[in-house]
Amino acid sequence: MTEKNQEKHKARQQKVKENVDQKVAQANIEQGIFQVITGNGKGKSTSGFGTVARCVGHGMKAAVVQFIKGNWECGERNLLEKAGVPFAVMKTGFTWETQNRETDTQAAQATWLHAKEWLKDESIDLILLDELTYMVSYDYLDLDEVIEAIENRPKMQSVIITGRGAHRRLTELADTVSEVKNIKHAFEAGVKAQKGFDF
Amino acid sequence: MTEKNQEKHKARQQKVKENVDQKVAQANIEQGIFQVITGNGKGKSTSGFGTVARCVGHGMKAAVVQFIKGNWECGERNLLEKAGVPFAVMKTGFTWETQNRETDTQAAQATWLHAKEWLKDESIDLILLDELTYMVSYDYLDLDEVIEAIENRPKMQSVIITGRGAHRRLTELADTVSEVKNIKHAFEAGVKAQKGFDF
Repeated sequence: MTEKNQEKHKARQQKVKENVDQKVAQANIEQGIFQVITGNGKGKSTSGFGTVARCVGHGMKAAVVQFIKGNWECGERNLLEKAGVPFAVMKTGFTWETQNRETDTQAAQATWLHAKEWLKDESIDLILLDELTYMVSYDYLDLDEVIEAIENRPKMQSVIITGRGAHRRLTELADTVSEVKNIKHAFEAGVKAQKGFDF
Repeated sequence: MTEKNQEKHKARQQKVKENVDQKVAQANIEQGIFQVITGNGKGKSTSGFGTVARCVGHGMKAAVVQFIKGNWECGERNLLEKAGVPFAVMKTGFTWETQNRETDTQAAQATWLHAKEWLKDESIDLILLDELTYMVSYDYLDLDEVIEAIENRPKMQSVIITGRGAHRRLTELADTVSEVKNIKHAFEAGVKAQKGFDF
């Protein structure tokens, strides 16, 4: 690279740095973050579990409530439970496998009780409410109750909700919302779900 | 719920189940998956690390190459290194902090050597190439070389590349592509990056 180009690159990067530094200086509110990860793409729950791993890696306390995916063998659960993360898991599996609204509702509400308890517990830094969006869409959980519990949680506690089709009231309340869009998926090309990658 | 509604719900769920079952039956190719997680939203790297946690949780072998984020304290690294995951980390921090194209290029290429080695190693089930997209955008790495290494990797090895603005040739080659869109971010509302959540 010529010296002139090097100078140009340096100037550009300097500007980026100033911009970032300024933004960082302005961001001075200390609080737990409520994040919603929604959309039809792969990586929503996985991202939630990644944040749990991050939290635990700092010696902080995280808890996981899993709606829906109860019947799958789950690699991240093996690792995180060993690292001391409590899991509350809805045991009925995917709802289209049970196909019984009454029992699904009961299971969802029983699972929600753990979430409610943890959402009052100051000692927990992060709660992952995995796949909760479907419980709201299917009316298995009362949205008002979910919102109230999240709003009244300890100030420094962070909460992540994952799942497609997050209700608008959830995304409105959230501090951070990411939408994971499916551009393409190996499954659609006939690739079988791979252990250690997909589950 | 009335009996009629219960029947309706059951029929709907039955249809969903049939659809899913059929798709699962059709997906019978066994291979490692190349995933690209791109877009401007929060959760790309975190999702990659979540998959690493999943892989390790099954007793399988994963490796992480981190471009860019070398100077941050990183909770997930603490946890995953303890679980036996090797990390190759580019030590220069964010590129807008070093602002030197020559040294950045050298650092990127030195880091890439680890990736290249691991992309030949059959014993590794999953490799996370965290933030690699920027190395291609900045021309720190040769795209042809990256693509060749990924194409020629062991058949059952999965690879994840994260970062904004993934090059089209990477997304074309990928089996699975997710785009994480930023809907909103706590940082923009003045919330400071939180330990255990953001880093």
